[in-house]
Amino acid sequence: MRTVLVIGIGAGDPDHMTLQAVAALRRADVVFVIDKGDVKDDLLALRTEILGRHRPDGGHRLVTAPEVDRDRGTEVERDDGRYRDVVVDWQDRRAELYREMLATELADGGTGAFLVWGDPSLYDGTLRLLDRVLDGIEGEWAVESIAGISSVAALAAAHRLILNRVGRPVLITTGRRIADGMPADVDDVVVMLDGRTAFATLPPEQRADLHVYWGAYLGTPDELLVAGPLDEVADEILEIRAAARERKGWIMDTYLLRRGADGR
Amino acid sequence: MRTVLVIGIGAGDPDHMTLQAVAALRRADVVFVIDKGDVKDDLLALRTEILGRHRPDGGHRLVTAPEVDRDRGTEVERDDGRYRDVVVDWQDRRAELYREMLATELADGGTGAFLVWGDPSLYDGTLRLLDRVLDGIEGEWAVESIAGISSVAALAAAHRLILNRVGRPVLITTGRRIADGMPADVDDVVVMLDGRTAFATLPPEQRADLHVYWGAYLGTPDELLVAGPLDEVADEILEIRAAARERKGWIMDTYLLRRGADGR
Repeated sequence: MRTVLVIGIGAGDPDHMTLQAVAALRRADVVFVIDKGDVKDDLLALRTEILGRHRPDGGHRLVTAPEVDRDRGTEVERDDGRYRDVVVDWQDRRAELYREMLATELADGGTGAFLVWGDPSLYDGTLRLLDRVLDGIEGEWAVESIAGISSVAALAAAHRLILNRVGRPVLITTGRRIADGMPADVDDVVVMLDGRTAFATLPPEQRADLHVYWGAYLGTPDELLVAGPLDEVADEILEIRAAARERKGWIMDTYLLRRGADGR
Repeated sequence: MRTVLVIGIGAGDPDHMTLQAVAALRRADVVFVIDKGDVKDDLLALRTEILGRHRPDGGHRLVTAPEVDRDRGTEVERDDGRYRDVVVDWQDRRAELYREMLATELADGGTGAFLVWGDPSLYDGTLRLLDRVLDGIEGEWAVESIAGISSVAALAAAHRLILNRVGRPVLITTGRRIADGMPADVDDVVVMLDGRTAFATLPPEQRADLHVYWGAYLGTPDELLVAGPLDEVADEILEIRAAARERKGWIMDTYLLRRGADGR
């Protein structure tokens, strides 16, 4: 039997690690790291800090899996069928690479760990990838998922927010989806993966009634927070975001859109 | 200046505590505990374990705030206006009680902590209560929210789930709301606070296309998990749930409803 741990390491603060995540990290013989090629220095430093702090023994091997390039054709984002084909092919190649890596690196009885930003259950593909990778691999394999502090939880904490209002729902969605407008029946919407700043392009009649609670680099010393009526602060967020991205070379941000009177 | 920390202690596993939560707990001069009168022995034991583990020094005072009874009139759930009045009055009395407690127990320069199950940002009222309590209190007060592992994250981890499917949204809602049916435009719905087992009363045409991933006492040694097509496992969940509730005297459960082919 081989065990693969998918460990949520939190949204950016090394102290987001749970005691369970620390214990899991200590069980690992091999720590797998997905090198996306464009891994940011800050994120790399944070991961190194987490490993150094909780595995000072060095009793693990660090294995870096090179990321498989997606075919980034110019049609990818416009033509749905084409997008799907490209993704499937990429996923096949990627799964094959990981299957080889796991089979080679992990001995029988061994435990491997993948470190995942945020929580493995929200907008992270590692568990999905492992499903695919372990389907058809030889031997017995077990997968465990270790919950982590997501950027959603980190955003809420930074703004001291309760995401839901009493008895009401919360939607977690993507920038791509919110670009089509706020849903009619949910007044509290957390937006992730919004590289296009969709909040700024919502129709005026929707924007007028919205508060935004925005955060970038959550949990890190570079954390940026802006909150207020969307109409009043949208431009400020765009400016701060563009400047920070320019300065650091990358940005990760998320925000809550809240419909209704005073925003609380 | 006085500081009030609202600390998410996780969904039931003492190892859900983050390093940040542990550090926050260690800063507290006073730990406030809301006694709901019906506090379950298991939860009390868990809280005691967390305090004993991270504050073995005993250098804090434990202050128990008695919960204020709601007026549970028979009309409360049927007549919306009446419900609202009752809640507002209860909240006023409750805020007053907490205002007194905080002012009395916390010296200038002191730090108090509220321990909150799960994450303070999801279906927990402590931050909302504090907003109300500190509005109009004398002196300067700061509130910090410390993110925790919510039962949503714990459910996902237990079932090794990614809550969203690629590029798609997730709705977090209540049993009361889901009783009205699955939303038309969201295929992945996490249901909390469902004392009425609304999943079992969804219309047959909705149930046929749903998978359920259910969990109770998540993260504890009593954890119960059931997953499968809703039509096939709904009765099993109802039986297991009723038996567990009978045996333990209480239950806390949550579940994901997933629409679409194979449930993954």
